[in-house]
Amino acid sequence: MATRLEHDLLGDREVPAHVYWGVHTLRAIENFPITGQTISGYGDLIRALAVIKQAAAQANHQLGLLGTVHKDAIVLACEEIRGGKLHEQFVVDVIQGGAGTSTNMNANEVIANRALEILGHGKGEYQYLHPNEHVNMGQSTNDVYPTALRLATFWGVQRLLAAMARLRDAFDDKADEFGGVLKMGRTQLQDAVPMTLGQEFRTYAVMLGEDEQRLYEASALMLEINLGATAIGTGITAHPDYTPLVCEKLSALTGIALQTAPNLIEATQDCGAFVQLSGVLKRVAVKLSKSCNDLRLLSSGPRAGLGEINLPARQAGSSIMPGKVNPVIPEVVTQVAYEVIGNDMTVTMAAEAGQLQLNAFEPVIAYSLFRSVSHLAAACDTLRDNCVVGITANRDYLLDTVHRSVGLVTALNPYIGYAAATEVATEAHASGGSVYDIVLRRGLLTREQLDKLLQPEALTSPRWVTL
Amino acid sequence: MATRLEHDLLGDREVPAHVYWGVHTLRAIENFPITGQTISGYGDLIRALAVIKQAAAQANHQLGLLGTVHKDAIVLACEEIRGGKLHEQFVVDVIQGGAGTSTNMNANEVIANRALEILGHGKGEYQYLHPNEHVNMGQSTNDVYPTALRLATFWGVQRLLAAMARLRDAFDDKADEFGGVLKMGRTQLQDAVPMTLGQEFRTYAVMLGEDEQRLYEASALMLEINLGATAIGTGITAHPDYTPLVCEKLSALTGIALQTAPNLIEATQDCGAFVQLSGVLKRVAVKLSKSCNDLRLLSSGPRAGLGEINLPARQAGSSIMPGKVNPVIPEVVTQVAYEVIGNDMTVTMAAEAGQLQLNAFEPVIAYSLFRSVSHLAAACDTLRDNCVVGITANRDYLLDTVHRSVGLVTALNPYIGYAAATEVATEAHASGGSVYDIVLRRGLLTREQLDKLLQPEALTSPRWVTL
Amino acid sequence: MATRLEHDLLGDREVPAHVYWGVHTLRAIENFPITGQTISGYGDLIRALAVIKQAAAQANHQLGLLGTVHKDAIVLACEEIRGGKLHEQFVVDVIQGGAGTSTNMNANEVIANRALEILGHGKGEYQYLHPNEHVNMGQSTNDVYPTALRLATFWGVQRLLAAMARLRDAFDDKADEFGGVLKMGRTQLQDAVPMTLGQEFRTYAVMLGEDEQRLYEASALMLEINLGATAIGTGITAHPDYTPLVCEKLSALTGIALQTAPNLIEATQDCGAFVQLSGVLKRVAVKLSKSCNDLRLLSSGPRAGLGEINLPARQAGSSIMPGKVNPVIPEVVTQVAYEVIGNDMTVTMAAEAGQLQLNAFEPVIAYSLFRSVSHLAAACDTLRDNCVVGITANRDYLLDTVHRSVGLVTALNPYIGYAAATEVATEAHASGGSVYDIVLRRGLLTREQLDKLLQPEALTSPRWVTL
Amino acid sequence: MATRLEHDLLGDREVPAHVYWGVHTLRAIENFPITGQTISGYGDLIRALAVIKQAAAQANHQLGLLGTVHKDAIVLACEEIRGGKLHEQFVVDVIQGGAGTSTNMNANEVIANRALEILGHGKGEYQYLHPNEHVNMGQSTNDVYPTALRLATFWGVQRLLAAMARLRDAFDDKADEFGGVLKMGRTQLQDAVPMTLGQEFRTYAVMLGEDEQRLYEASALMLEINLGATAIGTGITAHPDYTPLVCEKLSALTGIALQTAPNLIEATQDCGAFVQLSGVLKRVAVKLSKSCNDLRLLSSGPRAGLGEINLPARQAGSSIMPGKVNPVIPEVVTQVAYEVIGNDMTVTMAAEAGQLQLNAFEPVIAYSLFRSVSHLAAACDTLRDNCVVGITANRDYLLDTVHRSVGLVTALNPYIGYAAATEVATEAHASGGSVYDIVLRRGLLTREQLDKLLQPEALTSPRWVTL
Repeated sequence: MATRLEHDLLGDREVPAHVYWGVHTLRAIENFPITGQTISGYGDLIRALAVIKQAAAQANHQLGLLGTVHKDAIVLACEEIRGGKLHEQFVVDVIQGGAGTSTNMNANEVIANRALEILGHGKGEYQYLHPNEHVNMGQSTNDVYPTALRLATFWGVQRLLAAMARLRDAFDDKADEFGGVLKMGRTQLQDAVPMTLGQEFRTYAVMLGEDEQRLYEASALMLEINLGATAIGTGITAHPDYTPLVCEKLSALTGIALQTAPNLIEATQDCGAFVQLSGVLKRVAVKLSKSCNDLRLLSSGPRAGLGEINLPARQAGSSIMPGKVNPVIPEVVTQVAYEVIGNDMTVTMAAEAGQLQLNAFEPVIAYSLFRSVSHLAAACDTLRDNCVVGITANRDYLLDTVHRSVGLVTALNPYIGYAAATEVATEAHASGGSVYDIVLRRGLLTREQLDKLLQPEALTSPRWVTL
Repeated sequence: MATRLEHDLLGDREVPAHVYWGVHTLRAIENFPITGQTISGYGDLIRALAVIKQAAAQANHQLGLLGTVHKDAIVLACEEIRGGKLHEQFVVDVIQGGAGTSTNMNANEVIANRALEILGHGKGEYQYLHPNEHVNMGQSTNDVYPTALRLATFWGVQRLLAAMARLRDAFDDKADEFGGVLKMGRTQLQDAVPMTLGQEFRTYAVMLGEDEQRLYEASALMLEINLGATAIGTGITAHPDYTPLVCEKLSALTGIALQTAPNLIEATQDCGAFVQLSGVLKRVAVKLSKSCNDLRLLSSGPRAGLGEINLPARQAGSSIMPGKVNPVIPEVVTQVAYEVIGNDMTVTMAAEAGQLQLNAFEPVIAYSLFRSVSHLAAACDTLRDNCVVGITANRDYLLDTVHRSVGLVTALNPYIGYAAATEVATEAHASGGSVYDIVLRRGLLTREQLDKLLQPEALTSPRWVTL
Repeated sequence: MATRLEHDLLGDREVPAHVYWGVHTLRAIENFPITGQTISGYGDLIRALAVIKQAAAQANHQLGLLGTVHKDAIVLACEEIRGGKLHEQFVVDVIQGGAGTSTNMNANEVIANRALEILGHGKGEYQYLHPNEHVNMGQSTNDVYPTALRLATFWGVQRLLAAMARLRDAFDDKADEFGGVLKMGRTQLQDAVPMTLGQEFRTYAVMLGEDEQRLYEASALMLEINLGATAIGTGITAHPDYTPLVCEKLSALTGIALQTAPNLIEATQDCGAFVQLSGVLKRVAVKLSKSCNDLRLLSSGPRAGLGEINLPARQAGSSIMPGKVNPVIPEVVTQVAYEVIGNDMTVTMAAEAGQLQLNAFEPVIAYSLFRSVSHLAAACDTLRDNCVVGITANRDYLLDTVHRSVGLVTALNPYIGYAAATEVATEAHASGGSVYDIVLRRGLLTREQLDKLLQPEALTSPRWVTL
Repeated sequence: MATRLEHDLLGDREVPAHVYWGVHTLRAIENFPITGQTISGYGDLIRALAVIKQAAAQANHQLGLLGTVHKDAIVLACEEIRGGKLHEQFVVDVIQGGAGTSTNMNANEVIANRALEILGHGKGEYQYLHPNEHVNMGQSTNDVYPTALRLATFWGVQRLLAAMARLRDAFDDKADEFGGVLKMGRTQLQDAVPMTLGQEFRTYAVMLGEDEQRLYEASALMLEINLGATAIGTGITAHPDYTPLVCEKLSALTGIALQTAPNLIEATQDCGAFVQLSGVLKRVAVKLSKSCNDLRLLSSGPRAGLGEINLPARQAGSSIMPGKVNPVIPEVVTQVAYEVIGNDMTVTMAAEAGQLQLNAFEPVIAYSLFRSVSHLAAACDTLRDNCVVGITANRDYLLDTVHRSVGLVTALNPYIGYAAATEVATEAHASGGSVYDIVLRRGLLTREQLDKLLQPEALTSPRWVTL
C-alpha cells in the first residue's frame, strides 16, 4: 500500500497515501481501539465540525489573518463535507481519550487534505495549507469540540422533537376516536372509577406535549457556544474581534441564532447543559416507557388479561405457540428508555469527573447523548407507525366492566351518603352483584335517578347533579 | 394505657386515647415499619397538608357544602399545625405503600381530632366532625398528596436557592479578592496556559448562578397543582366550581401563584415534574461536587501537592498523624452530591413504574426529593461558612509556577510562529529551563517585548499586541 | 449549662460538662450539620466500634504497650456500649467529611470519658487516660473505620438473610398450598401455556434462595479486615505483632472468623467489597420488586383486572372510594427496592471517587449500605407477615382461564401438527370459541384423548404421551 | 432485485432471493429500526446460537425425533457459522422487542436456508427443512435466547479476564521496578506518611486480582442454562429426556461444563445472574477508573502538578499549545468505566421490569452486557500496552518530597511522644523547615537515631525499633 510520511512531536509515521486523515488521526486509531465504531456514524457531528471550521475560516479571513486562497479552499472542503462527502474519513473511535482532541485533529486533517487537493497539491503537503495553522486557526479543541457537540445535539433534538410531535398527534387522534368509550379507571392496579378510553389516550398526548416543551427549553441551552475561548477560556492567541465574528458567521451558516457564552472560562469547562439535556431525555424516556407499559398492560390477554385494547399484530410472537402475538413495539420502546436512563448515568459521572479548566470526558458524553437522542427518535417513530395508529378498542367489553364495577358507587357518594355507599360496596364485593341492582333493590335511588347519575358524561367529569 | 375504639372497613381497633391520629394511621404504622423515620421530620410536608386542608375547607364552605362551625374548627386546627404544633402526631413512615393515602389519612385524623377538641368534643367522636367526610371533603389522596409534595418541595427549593445564592456571593467575593493572582490553568490535569485565581473562582460563582436559574425554572413546575382531580382526575364527586376556588384559596393562603393543571387526568398520574426537578438537583450536585473536587485538588499538599490555595482548618484530621488537616468540608459536600445522584435514580425508577391513572410510588419520590433538597442546602451553607470564606492563596508560589511554566510559550505563538515555539517548548522540557530565558537566549524576542507579552492582563484575556 | 474546657490543634473549646464526647466531636457537629441524623441510629456501627476498641486494648495490653488499669477501664467501657449503653453519645452526622475520622474520634472520646469515670476521674481529665493515645492506640481511623463498617454490615446482612429465609419459607408454603391450582402462564403479558399457581409461587422462593446464596458470598467479603494498617496500610507506628493479635482478639470477641487482608495498603484504600455487596443488594432489590410487581398484577381487579389471587386487606385504600383496598405491602417493598438501587449508585460514585491511599467518601457508603440492608430486611418481614401468608387463590376462575385459553393448543402440537394447531388457534381467536370444542368438532382428537392430553400433570411438566 | 415469497401468520411477503434470512427476520427489520447496528456485530452471540442449534439437532436426532438427513444438514450449517461464515446474515437490530424472538427466528431461518442449500434445495423451500419445525425443534426463544446470552457472555468474560491478567502483570512488573522508590503516601489528597511507589503500583495489581476472582465467580453463574424449558419452563412439548441430553451435547461441543438449572420455570424468567455479572463488571469499572484517576493525578504537571511519574507520550495533546501531552489512555479507560456503570443501570432497570414468566427486555440486557465486556477488555489492553508498561518515575523528586515532608514526624511518634511530635509538626508548617532539622535542633533524637528511624524499610512497613 502506498504511503506518505507525516510528522508530529513523537516523530515520523507512514500514513496510507489515499486517506485524507493524517498522523494525529493515526495515533488516535492506535490509542483507542475500544468500540470499533468510528465517529463517521455521527453525521451531525461531522457536519457540525465542518460548518465550525468554515465559519472560523471566514472570520479569520475577514480579520485579515487568513488569505483568500486558503479561505476559499477550506470553505469549499467544508461545504463538501456538510453536503455528505468524506464522512468515512472520520475514523477515530467514538470513545476516545484526549477531550475530543483526536476528533478535532481528524477534522483538521481531512479538511486540510481536501483543501490541498482543491488547490492542486498532494495530500500531506502541509507547507501549502496546514491542518493546525490554517484549518484550526484561532481555535482549540476546547472550544471547537464542545461547540460541535452542541450543534450536533441541537440538530438531533430537533428531529426528536418532530418525532415526538408525530407520536403526540397519533395519540391525540386515538383520543378523539376513543372519546366515547367508557371504561374503568384504575389506581394502584385496582378498579377505581369510570373514565373514557379517550381520556386515557389523551393523557399520553399531553405528557408528550409537556416533554416536548421541556426538551425544547433544554435544547436551547445548546445554542450558547464558547468559540473564541481557545485553550481554557481566556482566549489566548485569539484576536479580540474573533469571538463575536465567528459566532455571527456560524449563526449565518447554520441559520440558528447562536450566542457566545457570557463567561468563556466557565463555558469551556462546564458540562451543565449536557447534564440538563440528558436529564430531560431521561424524563422523556421515563414517560414514554410508562405509556408503553400501559399499552402492554391494557392489551394483555387475549383471554386471561385486561383485554381492553388491541395492538396491531406486527410479527409472529413465538416459534412454539401457534397464533401468539406479542406487544413487540412497546417492548422495544421501553428498552430504548432503559438505555437512555443508563446513558444519563454515564453523562452524569463524566460531568462530575471534570477537573479544573476542562472536562476531559466529553467524548463519552457525546457518545451517550447522540445515542439517546437518535434512539428515542427512532422509538417514537416505530411506536407511532407500527403501533399507536393501529390500536383498536374492545368497546363492549369495556362498557361491561363499568357496569359490573363496584367503583360506580363512588359516583353515588354525594347522593346516598358515604355510609350507605360503603354498605352497597360491601354487599357487591361479597355477592358479586352489581351496584346498579343493589342500589335499586335497596330503594336508595330510582332507576331514573341512577341512569341520570351513571351517564358517561356524568361519570367522567365534575358536575353537580340535582336529582 | 387508656385507649379509644375506632372503626374502619377491616373492623374495630383500640387507639391510644391521647393521640390525635386514628385507626387508619394505626394500620399504616403496622404495615410500614420500614425506616423508623416518620413524616413528622418533614415540616414542609406537614405544613403543606395543613394549608391544603384549610383551603379546601374554605372552598367547600363558600360552595355551601361545609357548615361554618366545621369550617372554623378545621381552619383553626390547620393554622395551629401550620404554626408548628402537632407535627409529632404525623407518625406514618416516610416510606409507605398506598400512594400517600396513609399520609393523607394521618392528616385528616389529626386535623379532625384537633378540630373536635376545639369544638369541645372528645377525640374520636367523628359523628361531630369526620376525618374523611369533612376534613377530606371534595378531596382524594390523589390530588391532595401530589399537591402537598409540590408545595413542600417548592418551599424547600426556595431555601436551597437562597443557600446557593449565599455560596455564589462567597465565590464572587473570593474571585474579586484573587483577581490579580496569576496562576497556571490546567487542562486534563496538565499545565496549560496562565489565568488568574480570580477567574478560577469566578467560574464557580457563574456555575452556581446558572444552576440557580435552572433550578428556579424547574421549581416553577411545582406550582401546577391538581386539586379538584379527586380519584383519577375526572373530578368525580367534586363540585364543578371547587377546582378553581380551592386553587384561589390556596394561592391566597400561601402567597404563591398556583395554577390548576390544564389536564387533571394527566396531572394526577404524571411524575414528570418531579423527574425534571430531581434531574436539575442532580445537575446542581454534579457541579457542586466538581467545584469541591477542584478545591480539594488545589489545596492538596501541604508539601507534596498542588499547594495553590489553603482551606481553613476546621478540625484535626488524624489521630495518628500530628498536625494533619483535611479538606473535610468539600468532602462532605461531595458525599451529599453522590447521595442526590442516587436519589435521582430512585426518583427515576419510581416515576417509570407508575401504571395507568396513578403513580403508587410517590412516597419514595417525596422521601428522595426532600432529602436531596435539604441536604444540598445544608451542604451549600457549610461550604460557604466553613470553607469558602476562609480560603487563602499562596500567591508567590502561584506566580512562580507561571514563570516556570512551558505553557507560557503558547502566548508567543502568534509572534514567533508555531515551529519556533515548539522548539522552545522542547528545549524547556528537556533542560528544565524557563521559556523566558530560552526565548531571550535564542534572540527570538527582546526582554522588553517579552515583558510586554507576558503581562498578566495580556496573558489572561484576548488581545492583539503590536510589538 | 456547665461546661468543661477541651483542647485540640485549633485551640480551646467549651464542651457541655455532662456529655461523654469531646472537642473533636464538637468540631464535627459544627462542620457537618447535614441530615440531622446522628450515627447513634446505627447501633451495629456503635457496637462494632466498641468491640474493635476493646480488641485493640486487649492486644496492646498483651504486647505490653497498654497498662492493665487502662486496659480494664477501656474494656469495661466498651462492654457497656456493646450492651447498648451510651449510644446517644454518638452524635456526629451520618454524612460527614473526613473519611470517618469524626466517627472514630467520637468513639475514642466517649470510651475515654466513660473509662475515666470508671477509674474515678472526671470527664475530660485526659491526662489519666487519653482518647487518642490509649483508646486509639495502634489504630488509625483508616483501619478502625472500614473494619467497623464491615462488622456492622456483616451483622446487618445476617439479619437480612434471616428475613429473606422467612419470606422464602412463606413463598414455599404457598407453593405447596397452590400446587394443584391450574392457571395460564404468560410471556410478555400475553397468554402462553398452562402452569400451576404453585409453580408460580415456587419461583419466588427459588429466586430468594439464589439471592440468599449470592448475598451470603458477598457478606463473606466483609470478614477481611485491615486492622494494623494504621494510616495508609504500611502499618507505621504499629507493633509488628499487633496485626495478627488484634484480629485474633476481635474474632474471639465477636465469634466471627475474621481475617487480615493479605495486602493492607490495598485493603485500606479499596472499597471493592462494598461495591460488590451493594451490587448484590441491588440484585436482591430487583428480584424482590419483580416478585411484588407480579403480586400486584395477579391481584389486580377485583373485577376489571387479572383477578387471579387475593392479597389480604391491610388498610382502607381510599378516602373517596368506598370499599377500595390496595396492594400496599408490595407497593412499599418496591419502593424500598428503588431506594436500594439509588443507594447503589451513591456507593458506586463514592467508591469511584477514591484517590490514592484512601477513600474519603466511606461515610456516605456506610450511610447507603446501612439503609439498604435494614430497609430490605424490614421489607421482607412486612411482605411475609402482612401479605404473603394471607394470599388466597381464585381457583375456579383460574381453571376457567385455562379451559378458555387458546394457548392450550400448544400442548396438542406434537399430536395434531403445527399446521392444524395454527388453524385451530386462528379459528379460536376469530370465533371466541374454545380449543377443546374446536378440536373435538374438527375430529382431530377424541374427547378421551383430549382429556388425557389436557390433564394438569400433563400440561405442566415435560412428558411424552402415547395416544 | 430477485425475490422469493415467504409466509407467516400475517400473510405473504417478498424476501430478497439471495439472503439467508426469511419473513420473520424481515418483519423484525421493519419493526426495530432503532440503532442501525445489527447483531452480526456480536460474533459470540452468533456462534452461541449456532452451537445451541447444533446441540439441539444432535439431541433430537438421538431421541429419534429428527432424521439423519435433516440433522446432518443442520449440523453442517451450524458448524459453518461457528467457523465465522454467514454472520452478515444476522441482520436484526441489537435493540429489539419480542424477548429475543427475532434473534432466534433470524438464526432459525439462516440455518434452515443454508441447510437447504447443503441438501440441494433452494432457499425458502421450507417443505424440505423448516426453520421452526426442524431447526427450532424442542426449543423456544425463551430457552434458546437466554442460553445463547449466557454462552456469549461467558466467552467474552474469559477474554476480559485474560486482558485483566495481562494488565495485572504489567502493574506487578512496575511494582517490582519501583520497589525501592520512596515517596509520600496521601490520604484525602493531603500528605500522609511515606511508602514506596512499588507499594502504590502493587495495589493496582492486587485490586485487579481481586476483581478477576469476583468476575470469575460471576461468570460461573453463566454456565447454568435452561434448555428444555421451552415456553415458560414447564417443558411443554419437550421430550422428557431432551433436557439432560441437550445439555450434554452442548457441553461436549463447547468444552464447557454446562449445567441445567434446577428449576426451569425460575430459570426462564430470572435475570438475576445477568444483574450479578453486570454488578461485578461495574465493580471492575469502578476500580479501573480509580486506578486511572490516580495515574492521571500522579503524572499531573509537568511543572505545576504532582509530577511523580511520567506516562508515555502517545499523541500530541493540543493544536494550540506546543509540546503539551495529555494522559489520553487513562482518560479513555475512565470513559469506558462510566459507560459500563451506565450499562449496569440499563441492565438493572430491564431486569426489574420483567413480568410473570418471562423477561421481555433481555435484548437490551444483552446489548449492554456485550458492550461492557468487550469495551472493558479493550480498555485493559490499551491501558497495558499504551500506558502502564512505559511509565517512569521521577525518583529524585519523590525522595525529596519525603525528606521535606512533615508527615515524617508520624514515624517518630512512639519515640518522642505525641505532644513533642505535634510541636515539631507545628513548627515545620509555620517555618517551612524540615522535620529532620527541627528534631535535631531540638535535641529530641540524634542524627544516628533519626537516620535509623527514617530508613525506607523502617518507614514503609510495621517494625519496632529499639533506639
